Amino acid sequence: MRLPTIADVHSAAERIALYAVRTPLIESHVLNDRVGGRVLLKLETLQRVGAFKFRGAYNKISRLNRGAYPGGVVACSSGNHAQGVALAASLLGFKAVIVMPRDAPAIKIARTKALGAEVILFDRLTDDRVAIANALVKARGAALVLPFDDLDIIAGQGTAGLEIVEQVKKRGLTPDLVLVPCSGGGLASGIAIAVRNLSPTTVVSTVEPSEFDDFKRSLQSGKRERNARLTGSICDALLVSEPGEITFAVGRELLSSGYTVSEEQVRDAIRFAFEELKLVVEPGGAVALASVLFGVAPAKGKTTVVVLSGGNIDPLLFAEIIA
Amino acid sequence: MRLPTIADVHSAAERIALYAVRTPLIESHVLNDRVGGRVLLKLETLQRVGAFKFRGAYNKISRLNRGAYPGGVVACSSGNHAQGVALAASLLGFKAVIVMPRDAPAIKIARTKALGAEVILFDRLTDDRVAIANALVKARGAALVLPFDDLDIIAGQGTAGLEIVEQVKKRGLTPDLVLVPCSGGGLASGIAIAVRNLSPTTVVSTVEPSEFDDFKRSLQSGKRERNARLTGSICDALLVSEPGEITFAVGRELLSSGYTVSEEQVRDAIRFAFEELKLVVEPGGAVALASVLFGVAPAKGKTTVVVLSGGNIDPLLFAEIIA
Repeated sequence: MRLPTIADVHSAAERIALYAVRTPLIESHVLNDRVGGRVLLKLETLQRVGAFKFRGAYNKISRLNRGAYPGGVVACSSGNHAQGVALAASLLGFKAVIVMPRDAPAIKIARTKALGAEVILFDRLTDDRVAIANALVKARGAALVLPFDDLDIIAGQGTAGLEIVEQVKKRGLTPDLVLVPCSGGGLASGIAIAVRNLSPTTVVSTVEPSEFDDFKRSLQSGKRERNARLTGSICDALLVSEPGEITFAVGRELLSSGYTVSEEQVRDAIRFAFEELKLVVEPGGAVALASVLFGVAPAKGKTTVVVLSGGNIDPLLFAEIIA
Repeated sequence: MRLPTIADVHSAAERIALYAVRTPLIESHVLNDRVGGRVLLKLETLQRVGAFKFRGAYNKISRLNRGAYPGGVVACSSGNHAQGVALAASLLGFKAVIVMPRDAPAIKIARTKALGAEVILFDRLTDDRVAIANALVKARGAALVLPFDDLDIIAGQGTAGLEIVEQVKKRGLTPDLVLVPCSGGGLASGIAIAVRNLSPTTVVSTVEPSEFDDFKRSLQSGKRERNARLTGSICDALLVSEPGEITFAVGRELLSSGYTVSEEQVRDAIRFAFEELKLVVEPGGAVALASVLFGVAPAKGKTTVVVLSGGNIDPLLFAEIIA
């Protein structure tokens, strides 16, 4: 198993440069005052498809030989990876079939279809999505695009880390801490490769919903731990069973102890982002923000980068949270 | 009557540099595709207090002699100017009294108080807010900070135009058109001074709610025209009776014909910003976006800068619009 390197991340950055958004890094006086430190927000909510996932998907699919995959690409995803793959496939001339859980936010299913992908729904509790995807790969002559446990996906997500290092340096700062929302670990491990290589004094940590803290527990125990459940959090983007093999191998070398936040803290963070930052953040994208708002991560007196990883939230849920 | 010049705008930029946010200029593929042109969004929603108003307020108050005004500053405002003055006064060590209409969004009244200002409410239809403010100025020994018709206020708002020119140039582009939400004309005239001086081929135009199009009609007739009403639009930030003397004198030299949008188009623009841009925009801040979304302003095939001028929207109204 080869692990992704900083060279892979630099190559990915070249591949996606013309297609992905170089997202802004912003600062809010109100947030700084509340935290008692400097907080820089990396707005992956402004990435194409509204989440960081486009970076990895484009990097991955751009390296596939289209002639070898007449059926295009197949992906399993609760939503953001689905949209990233659908858009990247469309830009690169591949067909896309996305296997999505039936309880994924309606907006994510609708958007995936709008991007030209075929969507096949499965039941999160009773169906085996891996079996469904593998059958499609075989039957159609397609390539499987994994959501996180893939060298090219991780390297693609890591380009957000390259931008963070450059954007923070441009302000004359060195971050003490980078906080990354974490599910399978693709974004966290990719960012860790970039940040730890280019800014070795900076700590990179994961943030997870408190009942889906597989990555945190895995980093503690030294082996991949599983979550007890696969449903039951509003953070629909962060519900995986366990860290990936590659993401965990990278993570155990480069990531520091993780943090967890409650459902209520996530809701409060979404409301704070609406009221004070004028930004739309989805639950899974708001966990790192929640961790600094509630003193879970040690941001006081420090310079901390918080990744807002996505903004694809159902309007009804958003309305309920803010009103 | 001396009119503000590009030199005044440059001086204002120096004064506010350490205190105001240099707001990002972003681009959205989805918006470009919808419009059929390149649209660059200037995010004044991310300015301090959630609207451009802080720029002018800070520039104005920083030029006042604190010793000469023991009562601090007095301002009349429906909300965003109130917050801008309250924060700038607080940073500069001035007391602030804000005269606000009773029907201003609750969030704007609450935030003005939270910034340390004293708030005095008046009735938009029966009270004379100018008389109330002038009485306060006299009784307390305070300085009146006008919302738009003031050289230093206009120069301060113009700093957004300086940033636009620099940020667009950095992308190797020259804008054909800059579209600015317009009420009294402080932001539009300030931006026009910066943009027309530094990028003479660029057209700067106002956008207003269709029943509050005093600036458009004034530019057409060559003299200051009044609106028939002072209430009746969700664009609470854009409800003034007529253009300012100074803003109109600048505008007739530097602004091109204005555009108007309907209430429904404003609501659709707010929804678009939520769904596609992941940004929170208030009604008055969304009029320029509405004008390009609905083909009112001629953005097709062009490079257009759209100013999103503020994001202070009542949560209940926002929830109603998106859900």
